[in-house]
Formats: sequence, C-alpha cells, structure tokens
Amino acid sequence: MKKIAVDAMGGDNAPQAIVEGVNQALADFSDIEIQLYGDEAKIKRYLSDSERVTIIHTEEKINSDDEPAKAIRRKKKASMVLGAQAVKNGEAQALLSAGNTGALLAAGLFVVGRIKQIDRPGLLSTLPTVDGQGFDMLDLGANAESTAKHLHQYAVLGSFYAKNIRGLANPRIGLLNNGTEASKGDTLRKDTYALLDGDPSLHFVGNVEARDLMNGVADVVVTDGFTGNAVLKSIEGTAINLMGQLKTSITSGGLKAKIGAFFLKDSLYKLKDSLDYSSAGGAVLFGLKAPVVKCHGSSDAKAVYYTIKQIRTMLDTNVVGQLVDEFAKNEGKE
Amino acid sequence: MKKIAVDAMGGDNAPQAIVEGVNQALADFSDIEIQLYGDEAKIKRYLSDSERVTIIHTEEKINSDDEPAKAIRRKKKASMVLGAQAVKNGEAQALLSAGNTGALLAAGLFVVGRIKQIDRPGLLSTLPTVDGQGFDMLDLGANAESTAKHLHQYAVLGSFYAKNIRGLANPRIGLLNNGTEASKGDTLRKDTYALLDGDPSLHFVGNVEARDLMNGVADVVVTDGFTGNAVLKSIEGTAINLMGQLKTSITSGGLKAKIGAFFLKDSLYKLKDSLDYSSAGGAVLFGLKAPVVKCHGSSDAKAVYYTIKQIRTMLDTNVVGQLVDEFAKNEGKE
Repeated sequence: MKKIAVDAMGGDNAPQAIVEGVNQALADFSDIEIQLYGDEAKIKRYLSDSERVTIIHTEEKINSDDEPAKAIRRKKKASMVLGAQAVKNGEAQALLSAGNTGALLAAGLFVVGRIKQIDRPGLLSTLPTVDGQGFDMLDLGANAESTAKHLHQYAVLGSFYAKNIRGLANPRIGLLNNGTEASKGDTLRKDTYALLDGDPSLHFVGNVEARDLMNGVADVVVTDGFTGNAVLKSIEGTAINLMGQLKTSITSGGLKAKIGAFFLKDSLYKLKDSLDYSSAGGAVLFGLKAPVVKCHGSSDAKAVYYTIKQIRTMLDTNVVGQLVDEFAKNEGKE
Repeated sequence: MKKIAVDAMGGDNAPQAIVEGVNQALADFSDIEIQLYGDEAKIKRYLSDSERVTIIHTEEKINSDDEPAKAIRRKKKASMVLGAQAVKNGEAQALLSAGNTGALLAAGLFVVGRIKQIDRPGLLSTLPTVDGQGFDMLDLGANAESTAKHLHQYAVLGSFYAKNIRGLANPRIGLLNNGTEASKGDTLRKDTYALLDGDPSLHFVGNVEARDLMNGVADVVVTDGFTGNAVLKSIEGTAINLMGQLKTSITSGGLKAKIGAFFLKDSLYKLKDSLDYSSAGGAVLFGLKAPVVKCHGSSDAKAVYYTIKQIRTMLDTNVVGQLVDEFAKNEGKE
C-alpha cells in the first residue's frame, strides 16, 4: 500500500478540487492510501467514503502570500508542514500540495530533506510539445543560482525521471542555450556543455533554443532555475494571452465571428486540450528523499487526480531509491 | 538630409523585400537618402527610380551560418561590413540589416563602435502587449554575461529610447525577475534592484515576471542578455506554435471547422495583426555611436519600411547624441 500525504488546503480551489481529485484517485487505484491534512469539516463536505483515507485535522494553513521560509518555521501546524512531517517520520511516502510554491520547496528541503549526494534538488515539470509527447524541464526555479555541477546533476535527475516515469529508454538531454552551436552561451553554459558532453551515461544532444522547445527538440531540457522560471512563465503568459486575444477577437467580431466560433468550437476545444498538460502531473521537487510534488495553484480535480497518479508511478518505480544508488555510485568516482 | 546605409543582401527575402521597403520609405520620407550595399544587378531588378538612392556594388555577403566575428574580419567587402564602414567614416548616419544577427552585433561593436561611457550596448526591441502599447526589452542577447552596472545602464538606455522614440513622458522601468517582491532573485537581480531603486532619474516600478510582460506591466523591461534571449525566443516559439496548432486544428477539423474558419477569418487576421509588431521597427543595438538596427531575418517590405521609419526617428530626435550627453554627465558623478 502506497501512503500519500495530501495538503487539502493549498491552491485556489481548495479543499474542493483537492478532495474531489483524491476521491477519483482512491476509486481508480486500489494500492494507495491518502492522508488528508486540513480542516476536517470542510474536507468532509466533499470526501467520498473510503477505508483508505484519513483526515488529519488542522486549522492552520500557509497562504499564497506568506514568506516561504518563515511560514514553514512559524506555522508548525499548517496542513502543508504536517504533511511534510509525516513524510519525514515515515508515516507517508510522498507529499502533494497545490499551495505556496516557495513554502513547499522550503518544506521539501528543510523538513523532508535532500538525498545526501544531490547538492540541489531541482524543480521538474513535463511541458507540452506539438506532437503530444512533451518534454521535461528543470530547474524551473528551485534555485536562483547554479553552477555547472548543479546543471549536470539536473541532467542526471531529468534523465532518471524521463526513463522511470515517462518510460523513455534513452531520453535525449538538451542544454537550454542562446544558440545551438557548441561554443554558445555564457561561462555557465560552456562549462555545463563540457560536463554533459563528457558523461557517457547521458544521451546529450547538445544545445537547444527556447524557440524550439515546443517542437520536441529534446526529452529533457536542463537550465538554471532563474532562466527556467523565466522561460516557463514566458510560455505560460504567451499561451494565456493568445487564447485570451483569440476569445476577444471572436466576441468583439460581431455576428459573423460568432457564427464562425460556433462551427469551430470543437477545433478550438481540441487546441485548448493540447495545451492543457495537467495529465502529465505536477512539478516535482526532484532530488529529495521522497516525492514532493506541486500542483498548479489553479488546479482542478482532474489535475490533482493526475498528480496522485504521477506520485503513484514514482513510488511504483522506486525512482527515488534508484537515484540514491546512482548518486552513491558516482560519489565513489569523484 | 538623413543618410541611411542599408545592407541589401541580408535576410531570407533579400534583396527583394529590402529594396521594396526602401522604395516605399523613399516615397514617404523626403528627408532621407539611402545607400544600398549589395549586388547591383539584383538590386536594380526591384529598385524604383529616385535621386535619393545610391547602389554600392559588392558581390560578397555574410551568410546566416557564418561565424560572426570571423565573418566581419575576413569578409571585408561584404555588404553589411561596407555599410558599417560607411557609418564609421561618416558617409552614413545609421545602418540597417536583416542579415546574421551576431555578425551585425560584431560589426556594430567593432566597426561602428560604442559610446565611450557605455560599457555594453544592449539589443533592444519593442514587443507586443495585449493593449497594443508594447514594451521595450533589453538586453535581448548582445551580451551573454552582465553585471548589475550593465543592467543599470540598460535601464537608462531603455528609458531614453522609450522617451525619445516612443514618446513616453515617464517610462515605467521593470526588472525581469522570478517574483515581484523586492527580495527576489539571484545576486545579480538583487544588486540591480538596489541600483535601479536608487536612481532618481528612472521611474523604476520594481520587479516584473515574464508571465505578465504581454499585459504591459512596464514600458521598459531590463534583463541580462542570456535571459532576455531565452524569454524572447520562448514568446516567439509559443506564439508561432500556437498559431500553427490553431491552423492544424482547423484544417484537420473537417467541413464544420472549415465553415467556422471562413466566418472567423476577419477575427483571426486581426489576432495575427495584433501579434505582428513589425510596425515598431527592428531590434536596435543601442549604445553605439550611431543607430544600428536589425530587422528580423524573415522581414517583408513592410517590416523594412517601418525599420527605416524607426531609424529616421532616431536620427530626428538625436537620441544617440543625447545618450552621449547623459552618460558624460553621469561619468562626472562616479
């Protein structure tokens, strides 16, 4: 039985979306047990009957505008912190939250703890490509400053994730850079290029540009957390604004446009679906002693469901245990 | 009379698009003279009669895959290099090219030369916002590594550009960061924040996130060249792929979708127009002794026309001369 701690109070649609996602996951997966941390009365309003779910009542929670490290230290009874404690104490094997990202990163690092040999766990997410395969990118913002050694570790982490969770035999690793030639980039990129190119355990395909990410130029894209965060938010912002503009140009386009939209409805929904990548799960803080996964703050029940599914696969494949072995092996070499 | 050197041979649609853009600019603006550098016979095929245009024949040109610095050194008779030389020698006051970006940056720095007090000219472009006002961003990739002092200079450069070329009285300057709070970011961002916040000549509005750029959170957005390049290419790549997906979902959507698209045509064109920001001109390597402006490689005649218009405004307002004065003044203070 896989035991998953779920912060019921994090995110814009909590606890309803969280609990409804949990209901669906419990119905579909008979090998999981869920611990729901949060306000019992509010949770019960949405929770379906199951023997495999427990509510751990708490009234404290971390807000989206709380200062992360401070919140983790001071709000010892917050739903997110209690969930992280349960993982630390071995009562649960993984943690899911749709709450404050910074606080979850802090809870992951300071409560759950990192794997000894990994200097900096990275935030990893699977993002959409036009062919529907998707690609994994890290670091998406766990660390503002990185060295080439950290980026090399991200590549190993990403490769492990793509193999174990996405089932790719030999994931292509790309280094995000400002040009595809080997000589491109700043010192960090040049040093990282050399490390990746010299590691026979990685299928390194060279530099990739941000323009080509959605075309599937690599299965795993490695970058520093500052750039990764900026690129992720650029993609999100552009997609949201374009879809918004499309909507505006239809609604302000008069009768003709409305007739057009009516006939085009199915195609537009298909486009929206192809951008909705919630079925790939949430963003993993990868490199910790256990899976700690962040759902988008605006997650609905479906996104929560798929994130539980993702965590289940991470526990099934024992990807974290394998990471420990891999890094222990490399440690000997250094 | 303003004298503008134009590389007739750079870009995917050269020389036709370049020459046709020049024709239109000469017809509309009676105060410009154009020097066209490139293959005379090919240029003449498209050039309209005008007393204010000269062809400087050369058969050499820089290709899009040439190594920039090497190309500038070795291809001394290339159309782009001859144009830069003309600016250096005072025969022309500005240079336009749609060719190899790296080579144009190198020609700008090593042939035209930077303003003494500006350590690192930055690549600046006006990008679209949903309200149609646009925002200026720099550095978009002229420099892979930057210090806080450089980013501060970019802010001053961007503010000058927005005032003089876009006519904004008090441009709002934003620092691209991984969160809006003042404490966010890496050392470079924190140091830059302090410099921008402490400069009374700037209307600094704080940190801005990549997700909000298209919403017009600032008139000028400052970042290092590595991040700027990644963000620009992320926006471009997402927009291109989304529009492509939209097209695919229509063409593969059967008769119903095609009827819809027929009725929606005007609205979809309007959307495409709102993304097409070529009327704002090209990307300026700002901080040089003269305007050096890069058109997108895929520029059509309209984009070339608007870039000439932009250069004309830069010469009209003497924005480069004012930059020299401003930086000379600041130099005394240090």
